[in-house]
Amino acid sequence: MTDPDIEKELAPLRASVKQQGDFRQLKASGAPELDIKKAVAELKLRKKLLEDKELSLTPDSANFDRAKMEDLLKRRFFYDQSFAIYGGITGQYDFGPMGCAFKANLLNTWRKFFVLEEQMLEVDCSVLTPEPVLKASGHVERFADLMVKDIKNGECFRLDHLIKAHLEKLCSDKKATEDIKKECEDIIIKLDGMNKEEMGDVIKKYNMKSPITGNDLTEPIEFNLMFGTQIGPTGLIKGFLRPETAQGIFVNFKRLLEFNQERLPFAAAQIGNSFRNEISPRSGLIRVREFTMAEIEHFCDPSDKSHSKFESVEDTTLLLYSACNQMDGKSAERKTIGEAVKSGLVANETLGYFMARIQKFLVTVGIDPQRLRFRQHMGNEMAHYACDCWDAECLTSYGWVECVGCADRSAYDLTQHAKATGVKLVAEKKLAQPKTIDVVEVVPNRGLIGKAFRKDAKRVLDALAAVPENKLNEFEKTISENGEYNIEEQDFTAKVTKDMVTVKRYQKTLHVEEFVPSVIEPSFGIGRIMYAAFEHNFKGREGDEQRKYFSLPPVVAPLKCSVLPLSSNAEFAPFVKKLSQELTKVDVSHKVDDSSGSIGRRYARTDEIAIPFGITIDFDSLKEPHSATLRERDNMSQVRIKLDELPAIVRDLSLGKMQWSEVEAKYPKFEQQESTETQ
Amino acid sequence: MTDPDIEKELAPLRASVKQQGDFRQLKASGAPELDIKKAVAELKLRKKLLEDKELSLTPDSANFDRAKMEDLLKRRFFYDQSFAIYGGITGQYDFGPMGCAFKANLLNTWRKFFVLEEQMLEVDCSVLTPEPVLKASGHVERFADLMVKDIKNGECFRLDHLIKAHLEKLCSDKKATEDIKKECEDIIIKLDGMNKEEMGDVIKKYNMKSPITGNDLTEPIEFNLMFGTQIGPTGLIKGFLRPETAQGIFVNFKRLLEFNQERLPFAAAQIGNSFRNEISPRSGLIRVREFTMAEIEHFCDPSDKSHSKFESVEDTTLLLYSACNQMDGKSAERKTIGEAVKSGLVANETLGYFMARIQKFLVTVGIDPQRLRFRQHMGNEMAHYACDCWDAECLTSYGWVECVGCADRSAYDLTQHAKATGVKLVAEKKLAQPKTIDVVEVVPNRGLIGKAFRKDAKRVLDALAAVPENKLNEFEKTISENGEYNIEEQDFTAKVTKDMVTVKRYQKTLHVEEFVPSVIEPSFGIGRIMYAAFEHNFKGREGDEQRKYFSLPPVVAPLKCSVLPLSSNAEFAPFVKKLSQELTKVDVSHKVDDSSGSIGRRYARTDEIAIPFGITIDFDSLKEPHSATLRERDNMSQVRIKLDELPAIVRDLSLGKMQWSEVEAKYPKFEQQESTETQ
Repeated sequence: MTDPDIEKELAPLRASVKQQGDFRQLKASGAPELDIKKAVAELKLRKKLLEDKELSLTPDSANFDRAKMEDLLKRRFFYDQSFAIYGGITGQYDFGPMGCAFKANLLNTWRKFFVLEEQMLEVDCSVLTPEPVLKASGHVERFADLMVKDIKNGECFRLDHLIKAHLEKLCSDKKATEDIKKECEDIIIKLDGMNKEEMGDVIKKYNMKSPITGNDLTEPIEFNLMFGTQIGPTGLIKGFLRPETAQGIFVNFKRLLEFNQERLPFAAAQIGNSFRNEISPRSGLIRVREFTMAEIEHFCDPSDKSHSKFESVEDTTLLLYSACNQMDGKSAERKTIGEAVKSGLVANETLGYFMARIQKFLVTVGIDPQRLRFRQHMGNEMAHYACDCWDAECLTSYGWVECVGCADRSAYDLTQHAKATGVKLVAEKKLAQPKTIDVVEVVPNRGLIGKAFRKDAKRVLDALAAVPENKLNEFEKTISENGEYNIEEQDFTAKVTKDMVTVKRYQKTLHVEEFVPSVIEPSFGIGRIMYAAFEHNFKGREGDEQRKYFSLPPVVAPLKCSVLPLSSNAEFAPFVKKLSQELTKVDVSHKVDDSSGSIGRRYARTDEIAIPFGITIDFDSLKEPHSATLRERDNMSQVRIKLDELPAIVRDLSLGKMQWSEVEAKYPKFEQQESTETQ
Repeated sequence: MTDPDIEKELAPLRASVKQQGDFRQLKASGAPELDIKKAVAELKLRKKLLEDKELSLTPDSANFDRAKMEDLLKRRFFYDQSFAIYGGITGQYDFGPMGCAFKANLLNTWRKFFVLEEQMLEVDCSVLTPEPVLKASGHVERFADLMVKDIKNGECFRLDHLIKAHLEKLCSDKKATEDIKKECEDIIIKLDGMNKEEMGDVIKKYNMKSPITGNDLTEPIEFNLMFGTQIGPTGLIKGFLRPETAQGIFVNFKRLLEFNQERLPFAAAQIGNSFRNEISPRSGLIRVREFTMAEIEHFCDPSDKSHSKFESVEDTTLLLYSACNQMDGKSAERKTIGEAVKSGLVANETLGYFMARIQKFLVTVGIDPQRLRFRQHMGNEMAHYACDCWDAECLTSYGWVECVGCADRSAYDLTQHAKATGVKLVAEKKLAQPKTIDVVEVVPNRGLIGKAFRKDAKRVLDALAAVPENKLNEFEKTISENGEYNIEEQDFTAKVTKDMVTVKRYQKTLHVEEFVPSVIEPSFGIGRIMYAAFEHNFKGREGDEQRKYFSLPPVVAPLKCSVLPLSSNAEFAPFVKKLSQELTKVDVSHKVDDSSGSIGRRYARTDEIAIPFGITIDFDSLKEPHSATLRERDNMSQVRIKLDELPAIVRDLSLGKMQWSEVEAKYPKFEQQESTETQ
């Protein structure tokens, strides 16, 4: 965005955002909450206008034809709607052979890049989650959208969308008075902060009906986005399909800490499916009802969020869109992550380290670095558990799409689960200085108590142990003055006499202290990354823009290589078979295409499914030493290589251990026009 | 089972099974169904007695201590109960770092072994499945168990188990008369074939109560084992979590056939989770509520189930337990798969090919070939869709456990989905000889019909097109004699006159014919394979039986290598760090253990988590040329190798591209007792 013409066009919009961004002063001056809410909503509106304008001025997006790309993805079965022969369900997709292989390669790359490289503890947890777990995490209460239903046909509408559409329509009516317009706009601005009852009142006041049938609507209903079910046959254990994989890691924290020999920091990771019952999913792979996530939970000491490998990434440049810049109407800025952490823009080294690694990963799997930015959440959009959050966003034809979230969840989740279960979820650390503390405790005479209370002895002991420390002085006074102490619980009473207890006081030296670890969470939406990679790699040939191909990097391309006999000449067949076997031996996935099309047409077919390398067996292959041509997808250049060298070369090219330029330098170029139909 | 002493003990049991197995004559002679049912139930009982006896005589199982193994699996977090801090749910497990890595390696091996090697079309389909799909597949109706509930506390009991337990108790009562015993035994035998009402009558007749509370029981309830949920917010789209991954492939058949350029045979594959709401899951990983499957659906011409690669496996020997041998009380027999297919024991080459490949795969991932057999389903236990089925069973402490099913599902699923959707799910094949057929069809005069019926014209045209071929002569006669023909549908009538239609007769030459493909399905239960591999690889050290380790093959072992500094000497640290980096570069997963235990104790810890190779940095490592010791887990021998050679050697060993014996032959042996605590 450094083109001066573009900047000129954007200037007034930037100014408009900046002016509104100054609501921070409003907040600082202690203005009423409603005024602040209104100001925030207006800020968002202005930001949206600015962003839309920016996008419309981006040259890349102009050439992109989404319908054409989606047609190719469908036609070559990268993915398509699930259960289509049954009419299909929105928000569900099946990955065909090419999509599935791309996904598997992407996940393997992820595993090497994060789990192996960082020696993370990978886990694989249950999808079906009992209700109490998700109550503790806040999902049962807060993971909901409001909706209303058509009372006759049951059709559902997201409440805020419905109100907004209705009021906007009222405003645009020619007969609308200024008063009505003002009132409507006022409500639209406040909508974001309204609760269920307030929105219900708006529905009633304007007598809103179903925009489709004109039927009456129900009262607002909170619709939880989790899929519910029952576990076991009794119908009594309520459960949900997990809405994120993270909770599986948190509930295993103690086991993981133990596995890591009680040391912090460590990171756990999980790849798996999550489920969200979206009210009306749209936008292809970007908003779906079931999706694969890859999540990392990095546990560390809240007072020390440094990272031992930060030095190795500190010179990495990222495009950072800070909360401040968003509010000031400024654009994102390129900075090294070292600078960003040093200046405090990014909260700590661990967050910064992961942001740099996320960028490197995304670029490795095919995301265009020019269409990648990190956007900081503003205070008002942060999830309920997060204390700082940067999203890796990819620019697509749907706008900037969050593909990876990188949040500091602080100690929220572990604290919640500890509260719900009574199980301590803490780590220990050595104190720099041993600490001496005073201890006061009740020491029971177990023999006497056992004799006196028999089967109730345990309850008595429990009751004595439960006397809070700050009540012990009073306890001691009572029992020494009265000679006895009465335990009075709801369903149990007992009289403890003086001889049954002593109160002991002593000093203790502590060498360690307990603390609840903080969690830094990079969370990858695999389907979204795949979609963005499709858009960023959808190319047309120079001079023949209609001839489309995907330039996916070899490491994630669904298949690594094609094997094409030049014609149906029977002499080629044994060479094709042998080569296919040799490629299999070195784990190179490949496709033999011995169908009858011209070689050019078959190359075009392999280009469409992103196959980066193509081997053709031709008449020269029959001569000794046997050889074949090897073609690279992106620049379509070809070389000739001996057959017995080929499999290892293609393997090294696929793994990124060898570059095409090295191959071109070493082997004789093969010159033949592939665009001719007859070659 | 060739030990003559053992065979002697088994002989009377074998004879007893054989005698009952002769019920086949009963069937052939047209005996009443109930008698046959009874005979089958009795046969099963006798088979069970034989099998239990066989197992008790197997030497391997005698030494095995399941509790000890489970303790190790839990302690080193291979896997453990899900949500344990919340009390846990039966039948759900989380895989910790070691279990997850083992699973990931197992699945990668599977992918290479099947998908890559056979160029299968891998897909990744939705878990949430709308009801109509599972109605068509038969799961909504038939995938259920019968249960009764305690009417007061809602506790559930599987109906057949409850009845059986109740009647067995009655029989064992000392006061039971011979008549009562006979009656009870009679019911137990018939139980398998009883329907809901019949079982309900038994409950009433014997006045059965909850065995736990003594409360009354409900009427029998069919409990479907699928987890139900609602898709979308309306609550109107009923869905289930898939109970198997197969259906996702079947509903995509057309896309896959097209992807394969309309050619048969081809195989599709899918790895993914499935869900079954077991009434009361037990037996650890063997019966769980969510589990990972890897399924293959091989589509082929029903009239040609040969396999192009059968020759490559025909000499493979399998332990086959045929339906006949089961009924005759004979044991399983070793045969080559070539023989088995030739003799018709295994129905066709494709089934045989997969059985041989399944065996090879299982042995590769650590299943003991001596504890592996293929058992053929008997007619009465075949699933509703199968026409022949062989299970790969592994012998564990739970008995023989089905780990892979290999079924010929014939054309069942495609036929069902085609029926339910009206979408043709067929392939075409070239006829050896073109075929000439007579065609009779109604040709409508569209202009006239359009004019006459206007908006109803389409219905008229549809009705005419729907006249069945065998009614066309009659149709022609009616219209030519009466000059008109009446369309009479439930909600629509119309009068078509003679001028609006002609009946055309001609001959057509067909070059291809359509057919519904048959499906051969190898279906792998990943958790069960993992469990069997754990049992088969749980070993104690000679002379120190309590020192346990897992001898998992390097290719699936969770981590490939450990890196241990001999002591905490600071000079070792840079070597450890460098080596760890170099191992990461060549994708070798490893664990650095620089904790303070003796080297022997640390080796023991790595043995417990199945790490096959261990590198120790010792004082000789500090000298040039730098070197370290490399240890193999199973025989504990060690060699000394230069540091810069080590990473590549460990990688090749892990991938199975190099054997330990080669390493031992090439490098100097390192002799030092690891069992001493102080080395």
